[in-house]
Amino acid sequence: MALAERLHRLGTETAFSVSLAAAEWGAKGNRIFPFHLGDLNLATPANVVAAMDRAIADGKTGYCPAAGIPQLREALADDVGARRGLQYSPSHVVVQPGGKPVITKFIQAVMNPGEEVLYPNPGYPIYESQIEYFGGVAKAYRYLPDTTGFRIDLDQVRSLITPRTRAIIYNDLQNPIGAESTDAEREAVAQLAIEHDLWVLSDEAYFEMRYSGASKSIASLPGMQERTVILYTFSKKFAMTGWRLGAAVGPVEVADTIAKLNTNDESCTTHFVQYAGVEGLRGDQSECAAMLDVLVHRRDAAVDVLNDTKGIHVAVPEATFYLFPDVTDAMAIVGADDLPSFAEMALHNTGVSFCTRRHFGRPQPGESRHYVRFAYSGIDAEEIREGLGLLQQWIGNA
Amino acid sequence: MALAERLHRLGTETAFSVSLAAAEWGAKGNRIFPFHLGDLNLATPANVVAAMDRAIADGKTGYCPAAGIPQLREALADDVGARRGLQYSPSHVVVQPGGKPVITKFIQAVMNPGEEVLYPNPGYPIYESQIEYFGGVAKAYRYLPDTTGFRIDLDQVRSLITPRTRAIIYNDLQNPIGAESTDAEREAVAQLAIEHDLWVLSDEAYFEMRYSGASKSIASLPGMQERTVILYTFSKKFAMTGWRLGAAVGPVEVADTIAKLNTNDESCTTHFVQYAGVEGLRGDQSECAAMLDVLVHRRDAAVDVLNDTKGIHVAVPEATFYLFPDVTDAMAIVGADDLPSFAEMALHNTGVSFCTRRHFGRPQPGESRHYVRFAYSGIDAEEIREGLGLLQQWIGNA
Repeated sequence: MALAERLHRLGTETAFSVSLAAAEWGAKGNRIFPFHLGDLNLATPANVVAAMDRAIADGKTGYCPAAGIPQLREALADDVGARRGLQYSPSHVVVQPGGKPVITKFIQAVMNPGEEVLYPNPGYPIYESQIEYFGGVAKAYRYLPDTTGFRIDLDQVRSLITPRTRAIIYNDLQNPIGAESTDAEREAVAQLAIEHDLWVLSDEAYFEMRYSGASKSIASLPGMQERTVILYTFSKKFAMTGWRLGAAVGPVEVADTIAKLNTNDESCTTHFVQYAGVEGLRGDQSECAAMLDVLVHRRDAAVDVLNDTKGIHVAVPEATFYLFPDVTDAMAIVGADDLPSFAEMALHNTGVSFCTRRHFGRPQPGESRHYVRFAYSGIDAEEIREGLGLLQQWIGNA
Repeated sequence: MALAERLHRLGTETAFSVSLAAAEWGAKGNRIFPFHLGDLNLATPANVVAAMDRAIADGKTGYCPAAGIPQLREALADDVGARRGLQYSPSHVVVQPGGKPVITKFIQAVMNPGEEVLYPNPGYPIYESQIEYFGGVAKAYRYLPDTTGFRIDLDQVRSLITPRTRAIIYNDLQNPIGAESTDAEREAVAQLAIEHDLWVLSDEAYFEMRYSGASKSIASLPGMQERTVILYTFSKKFAMTGWRLGAAVGPVEVADTIAKLNTNDESCTTHFVQYAGVEGLRGDQSECAAMLDVLVHRRDAAVDVLNDTKGIHVAVPEATFYLFPDVTDAMAIVGADDLPSFAEMALHNTGVSFCTRRHFGRPQPGESRHYVRFAYSGIDAEEIREGLGLLQQWIGNA
């Protein structure tokens, strides 16, 4: 009794091995500075928790509609629309157990086997996994470093499009690199989508995780709302990663399809958790604002030390909770041949744990610089200074 | 921009239309007796809710392992094993957001496109939907009425098996018909699975929803544990349908595969809800016992009236919360040509709302008797007597 052959095409998130290595090193009595976690060590706002408790007391423990409770669909239509200058109705919104399910359901809804989907690399590894699992051809597009951070290699994107290209996955405010498109770049991506009649999955997980300026959605550009599915998640803004609450927001035909997939896959998203989501969107926002204050403080602490470290250079993103420094020169200084060695040496010499570029997709031809990802969502500012201070000393003394 | 072609193979649950018809009739000022709901109108046990609140207070709001928290995997291994006379370890258990996800993940894990999977019909409509959606051939097997209820047509099962048959879905304590296998029948199904080297999905959603006797699992028969995946759910026993908590319990290679699908599909099941599950399994059981008392009382109330109604005959299942009466003669009495007409006439004449055989798969050749499904999980005993009393009068006076 063999397992099914499609499983050979299924990828995964390899960052788990970093957690494991950190845990093993910690178990030997070593102090760990956890920069590898893409999770928040902050509490969910109290008003959000209280709304869930009220929902349970009100008996919201039975099944609810596959597409989500009407109140949450309406709150999401209002909130997502208002923040993007767009009009959405509840029929455009389908609630999900997290943001991640939107990826597989979007792919299932729009891509046939043999068709091509463009996706960012480095990027969230589930994009590539799901494109290939459902029989598509995953075509990676890259980012190039520039003076303020990273930009999409638009010439490459253009060159990758063929008559078989069905969709492009676009993750402005990007994990892992923290990149944000200029208006011109976002417009260029939209123009390509329109020109080649592509669906767009706009992963907007970090849309509201920003410290200055204002986020823009590719869905708000002319001709784009009807071809774009927005991945929305409560995970980051409301520190609700473990609650599993998100939504797909897009054309009604796609939303209806995704709701039918919900009926098949999981019936519905946890009923009472959806009431917590309504409170998050409609209720008091002060705890969310306080979280951003904590995070920007952490970012500044990390950037200060990193950019003062020999052989490391990092851009300062105004959004996400990731830093993606170039560590090529630091690797040479400490004598690390490759990224896995550098990560292991850093862990064993300083306790600083992080993911590397390798956890976010296969390296592309021509990549000559080496990058790692520091997440500052799961570690306090004082620990950031202490851990990165040890890293700085270690490299400085090498 | 068309949608993907695979969506043409995706089925759904059509029982939603029954809820809609009932709601519309109710909105016109008519009283509704809701026998169509496969949901419980009972509260989740207080100790289970309290355990979840403690978990949130303890900060269990972040991500957790894709396969579930170790405490819940261990509690499930212990509980599921002990009740079936089997040994399971946590590595056999993978937590899911409900019982339903086990269906799609089992199919994805074991079936290749073009292969055949046997499934019960009438039965839960998602079996057929997921087999066909993933490119398999769904082959329905039937039940035959006998003196005590229904039995599987084993000759038909045998005749359906070909070299391309990969798995059989077996739902002892069956939804919608309430059937329970005799030992001989269960052994015969196991024998066929072993002889033809088939995987088995044993949907045991109602394993503990019984009023006398003891449930047996096909996994506990010789040679079966290594080929059987048990669908476990907290939904029924703990009145947790809307919490979305369940598990797949089976061979380690399948559990590992399903955990990898979790990583791709939804990251993890809601973190703090899993602590509620641990309390359900390890904690005080008195509220669960009280729920079964309520349900058996409802069953008896419904059976008494139905079997006293002209043209209706119903067996008395010792498990599930469904009755599947033969209404062929009653339909003739009231002049209903088919099941949809009978359901509509019953709704409009009495307010009694129910699903029919048609909501549980395509009728098979040779079916001459007509059945409907009464669920007594979402309606109190007094309402049961009142509603079915009206049905009795309506048919009696026809």
